[in-house]
Amino acid sequence: MTDLYLDFLCPYAWRGVELAAVLRAEGEPFRLRHYSLVEGNHPDNAGARTWQITAQAAPAGGEGGWQEQSLQAFLAAQAAALQGEEARWAFTLALLRARHEARQDLNEPAFAQAAQDAGLDLERWAQDRADDVARRADLRAELDAAAEIGVFGTPTFVLPDGAAAYYRFEHLTRDPAVARERWSLYRTVLGSEAGIGTIKRAKHRPAK
Amino acid sequence: MTDLYLDFLCPYAWRGVELAAVLRAEGEPFRLRHYSLVEGNHPDNAGARTWQITAQAAPAGGEGGWQEQSLQAFLAAQAAALQGEEARWAFTLALLRARHEARQDLNEPAFAQAAQDAGLDLERWAQDRADDVARRADLRAELDAAAEIGVFGTPTFVLPDGAAAYYRFEHLTRDPAVARERWSLYRTVLGSEAGIGTIKRAKHRPAK
Repeated sequence: MTDLYLDFLCPYAWRGVELAAVLRAEGEPFRLRHYSLVEGNHPDNAGARTWQITAQAAPAGGEGGWQEQSLQAFLAAQAAALQGEEARWAFTLALLRARHEARQDLNEPAFAQAAQDAGLDLERWAQDRADDVARRADLRAELDAAAEIGVFGTPTFVLPDGAAAYYRFEHLTRDPAVARERWSLYRTVLGSEAGIGTIKRAKHRPAK
Repeated sequence: MTDLYLDFLCPYAWRGVELAAVLRAEGEPFRLRHYSLVEGNHPDNAGARTWQITAQAAPAGGEGGWQEQSLQAFLAAQAAALQGEEARWAFTLALLRARHEARQDLNEPAFAQAAQDAGLDLERWAQDRADDVARRADLRAELDAAAEIGVFGTPTFVLPDGAAAYYRFEHLTRDPAVARERWSLYRTVLGSEAGIGTIKRAKHRPAK
């Protein structure tokens, strides 16, 4: 089982989940998990981790800034996850596509549409969302697991052998052959006898 | 021609230069270039680049802290480079091995030994080093080129097509077959249709 850490804010996470969805359809096991970019990059967490997104207010519907939107998206997805792994995948894909393909905000209409697209039991989903304390606890457990692994960006894949790395790419694919090739390349890099820690492209900066 | 940006302070740069040296012996063209980690990571350069290592004092022999040692190492290597690309490679490898295999400081005895091991014309090398203003200008040109490319760590390889990325690995190799495989994997990642920007391993952090 490979864990895939995602944040709904992140277009790279969206592409990573699409990649995993293709591979999953072919029998490769993946499990979705949450990592918060807002929490991970918060200035108060530069040293010891003291600032937690799960302790912040979140106006209903994800109105407000990215912090509030991402927290509400996580909590809505945690409620979806209570209806099983398939429900979690369907809701997550629907909401990521709404955000990154349709360029919608992460707000109540987007959550409701994703829940409907995913075929959730809507009444049960609403009840589970209403138990905000429990959903925040579920989310906290995943964010704490991510922190312990050292996740710093999304998507990060944690392989069955414990190897874990951020995998950032620009181009979406839903083609199984292409998806397999991308996944094989990532696995080859992590498994190389070289002990590769990083391959990171330089970003051209114009002269002063 | 592939440019390889290095800093003598960096053990990953050392392994990268060893990799390139093996490939170069088999006919793959590489050229050595300097990037300064001290300058790149200097807090005054977080926004606009204003702090230049080439404008700093450097006590003779690289005594003092890492900043002074790295500056003197760069300038000694720039003087070696005036004796040709082969001389630059030989001096660079000798000095990187002194630092990262023999754990020596980057100081005058290390520079003199590297110059001798590299078979430099020692008198000419001393004269070229004495022209400190010119050597700093040579170094500045390489550091400015690195900044424009967006180099942020070493080793960074800049391929003939302009693709450039940091390539960090833990295990030294001088085996041609292994070196070819590592280089091929790096090229495959950069050339992938996915548009891979980053593969970066997470570093496990124990729970609080």
